[in-house]
Amino acid sequence: MQLFISEGEYKSRLERIRRVLQRRRLDALYLTNATSIFYLTGYSFISTERPAALVVPLDGKVTFMGPKLEEDHVPLKTRLIEEIKTYFDYPGDKHPIEYFADFLREMGLTKKRIGIDNKAGAAGMWGYKGPPITRKLPEAKFVDVSDLVLKMRLIKSPAEIALIKESAKWANLAVSLLQEYTAEGSWDVEVALAASLDTLSLMKKTLGVEFEPLRSIFPVSAGFRGQIGEMSAIPHAIGTKRRIRSGDVVIAEAAVEIGGYSCELERTMIVGKPSAKQKCYFEAMVKAQEAAIEKIKDGVECSEVDKASINAFKKAGLTHLVKHHTGHGLGLEGHEPPWLDIGNKEKLRAGMVVSCEPGIYEVGFAGFRHSDTVLVTKEGCELITYYPRDIEQLTIT
Amino acid sequence: MQLFISEGEYKSRLERIRRVLQRRRLDALYLTNATSIFYLTGYSFISTERPAALVVPLDGKVTFMGPKLEEDHVPLKTRLIEEIKTYFDYPGDKHPIEYFADFLREMGLTKKRIGIDNKAGAAGMWGYKGPPITRKLPEAKFVDVSDLVLKMRLIKSPAEIALIKESAKWANLAVSLLQEYTAEGSWDVEVALAASLDTLSLMKKTLGVEFEPLRSIFPVSAGFRGQIGEMSAIPHAIGTKRRIRSGDVVIAEAAVEIGGYSCELERTMIVGKPSAKQKCYFEAMVKAQEAAIEKIKDGVECSEVDKASINAFKKAGLTHLVKHHTGHGLGLEGHEPPWLDIGNKEKLRAGMVVSCEPGIYEVGFAGFRHSDTVLVTKEGCELITYYPRDIEQLTIT
Repeated sequence: MQLFISEGEYKSRLERIRRVLQRRRLDALYLTNATSIFYLTGYSFISTERPAALVVPLDGKVTFMGPKLEEDHVPLKTRLIEEIKTYFDYPGDKHPIEYFADFLREMGLTKKRIGIDNKAGAAGMWGYKGPPITRKLPEAKFVDVSDLVLKMRLIKSPAEIALIKESAKWANLAVSLLQEYTAEGSWDVEVALAASLDTLSLMKKTLGVEFEPLRSIFPVSAGFRGQIGEMSAIPHAIGTKRRIRSGDVVIAEAAVEIGGYSCELERTMIVGKPSAKQKCYFEAMVKAQEAAIEKIKDGVECSEVDKASINAFKKAGLTHLVKHHTGHGLGLEGHEPPWLDIGNKEKLRAGMVVSCEPGIYEVGFAGFRHSDTVLVTKEGCELITYYPRDIEQLTIT
Repeated sequence: MQLFISEGEYKSRLERIRRVLQRRRLDALYLTNATSIFYLTGYSFISTERPAALVVPLDGKVTFMGPKLEEDHVPLKTRLIEEIKTYFDYPGDKHPIEYFADFLREMGLTKKRIGIDNKAGAAGMWGYKGPPITRKLPEAKFVDVSDLVLKMRLIKSPAEIALIKESAKWANLAVSLLQEYTAEGSWDVEVALAASLDTLSLMKKTLGVEFEPLRSIFPVSAGFRGQIGEMSAIPHAIGTKRRIRSGDVVIAEAAVEIGGYSCELERTMIVGKPSAKQKCYFEAMVKAQEAAIEKIKDGVECSEVDKASINAFKKAGLTHLVKHHTGHGLGLEGHEPPWLDIGNKEKLRAGMVVSCEPGIYEVGFAGFRHSDTVLVTKEGCELITYYPRDIEQLTIT
């Protein structure tokens, strides 16, 4: 089984970029976003304060410009980067952006039209400072194309969908283990790391040497993220001080990287016999998710999906507990377009992959949210994640 | 033991900000960087495509502007944010940046001078799009103060140093376990997760309920990051396909979050009896680190520290294997200023905390790098991390 995108597919992505360059009369594309660079070449690196960029000229070699410490890394990961130009380190005697301007001149781009995703010319993390590349190459014309690669990423190819489906299998195992290991008295992060470790070990045994995380240091990340008991009412909780108790609502989630891609799987679970109020909120959440899933189809406006879940909560009289929209695109990043949001008039298209995760949250009580990864199809949609959704199977006793 | 920064210290940071505002004749500070927001208030949140900002007015309430889903989170984490203003979600019927402009007007800032860390007005992640806040409040004067909080963070307080020292203890345990668990035939990520899990369990048992990760989902992160055998020659490797073999050089590393802060600890280890070449490179690296540490002292130019390690490698005839500078500041982020770099004329000051990690890397063979966390003092420096550095104790047999 192939657990990565083929070189041929990366090549065709680069060809598509060159067609866009031609159409938009651009002589080159300059990218600083590490995810975009991975998407086009299969090369991933740790984005830091050190400037790095991929330059795709209309004619000429695909070039990576970056710190010396990436020089030997690039050829190990891709054959599609044909040239590597480096500076020693940041900030250096001469600023990396000055080198980048030199490199662009060497490439004959001094007076050309360059599409760029970030006019600084660097990702700009962790206290980075520097002049914008646009100022260092004043005769060139820089054109903002910050959403070019994002747009290409919207519709997933069959190979991308296969990787997300493979991810879903292992996320299912991880959430199974989370459920199995969760008991009264357990610490959420301890259960989380144990489930992550065991999932990873089984993946290695099952998938063999072909399995290698490309973009994550830890390819399996399962846990509760602090969403335990009253903290489950905080959708973006980070941690919790206390152990899991009987009566807690907990939200389990897992992401597993396969060839750079991941699904999203989240399940609300009840520790001990569910109370009447827990059941009522749980059922309302499940119904809202079903209503949203029912709407998902090629050609449907994203806002319609959000409306469907809000209407379901309205019927249950619980709209005041809604704290976020219904979902977001995913694949290469935690969140990506399209947004399943009331304000998004874009249409869903077959091949898009989105999370569907309407939730309700009552402060001091609990939060209720399942998240599934859904593939948009011509006929409607296909659920990529498949862990049980009903309260009976999600009760931990 | 107090495992977090006190409310009093956060308050004094905010007071310091207000003194700067006064001095620079600014009426408010507008921050989008999540680390800066944590530094000033103790409130941490997951930065996403959803715009979020902290506004510190010279007179008036410290205000968090962000998505609805953070509303109930803020008061659980800090009492220093006095007002929360939210929009429902991104992108929304009305764009969040339009709300932010309204909020700033409500705060009386329509025509005022506002220091800002990012003129977009949003962190701008994951496919975020939107107009800059500067355009939505055209009568205000926005002043770039992107390095204001970064500069405040340069000198660590006694409380910050205490947290980094506590982090170093647990990083030491994590690296001990990594070394103990590493054997021929082990997978690096499996050893990594096992050491992380066991360290975390012991931390919980030792530190008790007071221990809560504030900024990380997993407070312990130990492992090799793919730096196994020939992949140890890639300083920013991410993963590896193969198991650990006898004869491998491996680079073990650990970070542990305590109250938002972490140290950095890395050790080069040899699996099996070291070869003559491995010994030679290892000793050269240790000497370069010692030479750099010897230089670290209040008043010394950062470049001098980098020169010291480069000179040591020069004596060993190995400069051609150097791929990065000597180190960087740390505390709240993986890397932060000051940079121990040949091009950095800034002076080290007592209270700065830096990594000291000169390395050499030979492609196809191996890489050699220890990293220690070092506190700059008036007299010289103090090593915060303390794991053994010599080849005898770092040989795994």
